[in-house]
Amino acid sequence: MRNFASIPAMRRQAQAWRTEGLTIALVPTMGALHEGHAALIRTARRQADKVVASIFVNPIQFGPDEDFVRYPRDMKTDRHLCRAWGVDAVFAPAARAMYANDHSVFVEETALRRTLCGRTRPGHFRGVATVVLKLFNIVAPHTAVFGQKDFQQVAVVQRLVRDLNVPVAIVAVPTVREKDGLAISSRNARLTSEQRRIAPCLWAALQAARRLCRAKPRSSAAVGKTIRKIIRAQGAYSAVEYIETVCPRTLHPVQTVKQGTLIALAVQIGDVRLIDNLVV
Amino acid sequence: MRNFASIPAMRRQAQAWRTEGLTIALVPTMGALHEGHAALIRTARRQADKVVASIFVNPIQFGPDEDFVRYPRDMKTDRHLCRAWGVDAVFAPAARAMYANDHSVFVEETALRRTLCGRTRPGHFRGVATVVLKLFNIVAPHTAVFGQKDFQQVAVVQRLVRDLNVPVAIVAVPTVREKDGLAISSRNARLTSEQRRIAPCLWAALQAARRLCRAKPRSSAAVGKTIRKIIRAQGAYSAVEYIETVCPRTLHPVQTVKQGTLIALAVQIGDVRLIDNLVV
Repeated sequence: MRNFASIPAMRRQAQAWRTEGLTIALVPTMGALHEGHAALIRTARRQADKVVASIFVNPIQFGPDEDFVRYPRDMKTDRHLCRAWGVDAVFAPAARAMYANDHSVFVEETALRRTLCGRTRPGHFRGVATVVLKLFNIVAPHTAVFGQKDFQQVAVVQRLVRDLNVPVAIVAVPTVREKDGLAISSRNARLTSEQRRIAPCLWAALQAARRLCRAKPRSSAAVGKTIRKIIRAQGAYSAVEYIETVCPRTLHPVQTVKQGTLIALAVQIGDVRLIDNLVV
Repeated sequence: MRNFASIPAMRRQAQAWRTEGLTIALVPTMGALHEGHAALIRTARRQADKVVASIFVNPIQFGPDEDFVRYPRDMKTDRHLCRAWGVDAVFAPAARAMYANDHSVFVEETALRRTLCGRTRPGHFRGVATVVLKLFNIVAPHTAVFGQKDFQQVAVVQRLVRDLNVPVAIVAVPTVREKDGLAISSRNARLTSEQRRIAPCLWAALQAARRLCRAKPRSSAAVGKTIRKIIRAQGAYSAVEYIETVCPRTLHPVQTVKQGTLIALAVQIGDVRLIDNLVV
């Protein structure tokens, strides 16, 4: 496995592979790798000859009050995992290599960001879209693989690719879960054992909402009430940031939840922010 | 010469050339081609094996009160000129092919736009940066050629390439002028003969300003006064939109004009907006 920190060196490797006629799949990550990333990399291996995993905790997608500093980092373990999973190259640039002091160009998605995490995390998807496009331009992948846990992120990246004519195919991989249903996330490592015990309530609540809507369409309010009740039953540790019911294509809010509606939520458990979603 | 309106067809041609090991230079234009474009295309021919000229009057770079509808268009003449100048492919997409109804992703440059045309044309450089990145992604050029008449546009595109790691080299070509000094522009065609007679005052004024600053540095105010006086002497047809003195790299305003300072101006002559600039 090759390791690159330098942008020109990563670019040269990618161009060398392309010149040989090999295809490249990119898995962009912020490190703290887990079984969710393993699933992304397995998918990437089926898509292309060479798999590049980028590891970069992107400062510009975190708000000033968010967990950029506390975000888990363990580069040594991450490299071991990448090697074990058959990654061909790890690209882990320094922040100062990615952003000049006078960096001033950003990619803005202006419609899909109006709901879900975009409402509570201003600037987040601007940071995501900007770094994703930078990684695409450096690694020149044929395919890039993202997890559906970050449903809105996938939607923004697909829109970015469409609207800017980016020659990269986007593949979305279903969320990987612990046995108790908790969506696997790097942030789970920051949960206390008590918080970890209650965290599966997010998925339990989403499933209850799906069951509620299976027989007949329900109002968004009724769905929200069902979810809130289950999460509140877990005690005072948790605070619901949002529960939203939207069209999965446009992310526009819908009032009636029926087959095909996306239900997405963000909940603070202690000081850890967790998200999850399902399509009814 | 090949003609492409379809994005996938243009992309296939570009990829075919790349596969053959040929290099591509792109000259992005809004049509209404003139000697300034001829100079860009001559430069492009020296830079690469294949030259693509795009012809696209980009709606999103015009403000609601600007001259999008009145902007000169003559596709038949443009194609003749491109053939005569040795262009290999013209890419002239329809606006509806470039922008979906729900287009929502834009490239924003946030620093260089604060002066010059960026101040008086809000949204203009967002439109320019977005369409330039789209054209780069479709045509996959090794090099792209721009005219220095639009000094700020070149600066924004160079910053875009740096900050988003776009693998395209940017080449800037000096402004081509009529014998009387008027910078050649598609918009000159909209001048009446009376307006055309006074239009060279922009370049005359810029040269006077340069002479003023040659012996010793002068204040930005003194330079502005000199330029305004010369333009006003041409009569009531003209209205100065801005005269600015800035650092050519950052486009930050400077108070003292000395060697290396960029002096740029925009003047309305009748209802035609003209720009010009020089570096002292």
